[in-house]
Amino acid sequence: MALFNNAASYNPPLPSLPKLSKFKLALCQLSVTPSKETNIDNARTAIETSARSGASLVVLPEMWNCPYSNDNFPKYAEDIDVGPSPSVDMLSEAARRLGVTIVGGSIPETSDGRLYNTCCVYGTDGRIVAKHRKVHLFDVDIPGDIVFKESDTLTAGETPTVADTDVGRIGIGICHDIRFPELALIYAARGAHLICYPGAFNMSTGRSLWELMQRARAADNQLFVATCSPARDPTSGYITWGHSTLAEPFGEIIATTGHKEAIVVAEIDYSLIHQRRLNLPLAKQRREDIYQFVDLHRRYPGK
Amino acid sequence: MALFNNAASYNPPLPSLPKLSKFKLALCQLSVTPSKETNIDNARTAIETSARSGASLVVLPEMWNCPYSNDNFPKYAEDIDVGPSPSVDMLSEAARRLGVTIVGGSIPETSDGRLYNTCCVYGTDGRIVAKHRKVHLFDVDIPGDIVFKESDTLTAGETPTVADTDVGRIGIGICHDIRFPELALIYAARGAHLICYPGAFNMSTGRSLWELMQRARAADNQLFVATCSPARDPTSGYITWGHSTLAEPFGEIIATTGHKEAIVVAEIDYSLIHQRRLNLPLAKQRREDIYQFVDLHRRYPGK
Repeated sequence: MALFNNAASYNPPLPSLPKLSKFKLALCQLSVTPSKETNIDNARTAIETSARSGASLVVLPEMWNCPYSNDNFPKYAEDIDVGPSPSVDMLSEAARRLGVTIVGGSIPETSDGRLYNTCCVYGTDGRIVAKHRKVHLFDVDIPGDIVFKESDTLTAGETPTVADTDVGRIGIGICHDIRFPELALIYAARGAHLICYPGAFNMSTGRSLWELMQRARAADNQLFVATCSPARDPTSGYITWGHSTLAEPFGEIIATTGHKEAIVVAEIDYSLIHQRRLNLPLAKQRREDIYQFVDLHRRYPGK
Repeated sequence: MALFNNAASYNPPLPSLPKLSKFKLALCQLSVTPSKETNIDNARTAIETSARSGASLVVLPEMWNCPYSNDNFPKYAEDIDVGPSPSVDMLSEAARRLGVTIVGGSIPETSDGRLYNTCCVYGTDGRIVAKHRKVHLFDVDIPGDIVFKESDTLTAGETPTVADTDVGRIGIGICHDIRFPELALIYAARGAHLICYPGAFNMSTGRSLWELMQRARAADNQLFVATCSPARDPTSGYITWGHSTLAEPFGEIIATTGHKEAIVVAEIDYSLIHQRRLNLPLAKQRREDIYQFVDLHRRYPGK
């Protein structure tokens, strides 16, 4: 039963396997300094180290080129479409030179006078395969703990984003996007193998929710979930949680780290998606006669 | 924007507070024996003990009157609508006599020649306020670990279930129902304060998913979630995980237990729902221009 034209399919075909279905992933938990140039150099070095470790997919953190604050976003922003964009240039060059796919964390993007929190995905030819603007801005107000409003400076993106790459179909979310099960449902229904969430959770939400959210998105949708955070800087105005992690389709953690600068290298084997869905066919067990989920931006045919 | 008549509202009003908005809950993690009579006596005693502890809401486990197996379901089944139903009679009498609300775990129900896994909710007057038939049957096939197919004997229910009680609006799910974020989204959109999941997870899914699922449903929907399992019997054909738990609206665990017979008594304060939703207004941050969720059985107006 499909009542709605663009109802997300609850019985998506098992995603076909990409060029590489078993590969190494690297999560670069980078320190972020006030110097954008230093940040770019550090990221380049981390990507090179990742590639030497055999990684075919490299993921960077949210706001890796800019200390996380509303004051800094406009100062560090780059115009990705028009340029100049030294952060994009570096990632594009590194992807092409090293032959790796890069989920480029996020940077502040300026476009037509607006600011976005934006993640680009780079193919092994260095081209931008997809661009995701964070769709759920992080506005939080916990008196005595943390008050932060991204919406004071940032504009939210308009669409979900999936990237078709050599290492599979990857759904992209940025930080607070992970709090919404709906976005992950969209990606699963569109056939994603992996969802990458560059994210900078803070000490409060990090402790209670960071691991929980990624494990839940993975287990509910029976796919891989990778998160990548900046390293913790206790002197910063916004202290991040760290703990970049890879979770598998039953929600188990395959690899993780603490809060210091680190590169997490772990193997992904997409055949596990197939196996988990045979073990427990959640997609077939869903009750489309009770609920339906509509993906308003899905274009038919195709993704 | 509401494209669909019965789109679940993403901005539900904060649920109004019920007669009791701060009260004690008791989760009765009961041992299940082959004797239904013994099971009924044990449950009655546990409810009496719970009431003496000051509990206003008592929750029982999934299949508390019947050792969990496809062979046993028809043997222990009762016709709840037509009778006789000694399990219902006991729960109804106990609720009225003790003045407590009871989420009566589940029992095998026979009705018109079909078998269901059914939970009744009893008001303080002893009447059945709501009846939930498990809507997602548990069929699992993990070779060398666990193979079980509820659908061999049971028929799935047709609708979600919310019960309006003295202790709030309660959404009901049974065990595998918790694996589906959609059902919890429905209950949140219908204004539930609490979702109760009587459940008998096994040793495999228990270890990896039991705590994860309930914390995720609570945190994603910013409401309370209570689970209640039978106590573990290592000699049983289907060994349950135990660990009956109460989670609060940020996904933190308020109270839990191990795997032995136990009564978990904990306080629920619904004002925490309001507070958490003010701290982090997830419902307002949802993107109805990107996804919409349709609750096909919601009747308008009302629930």
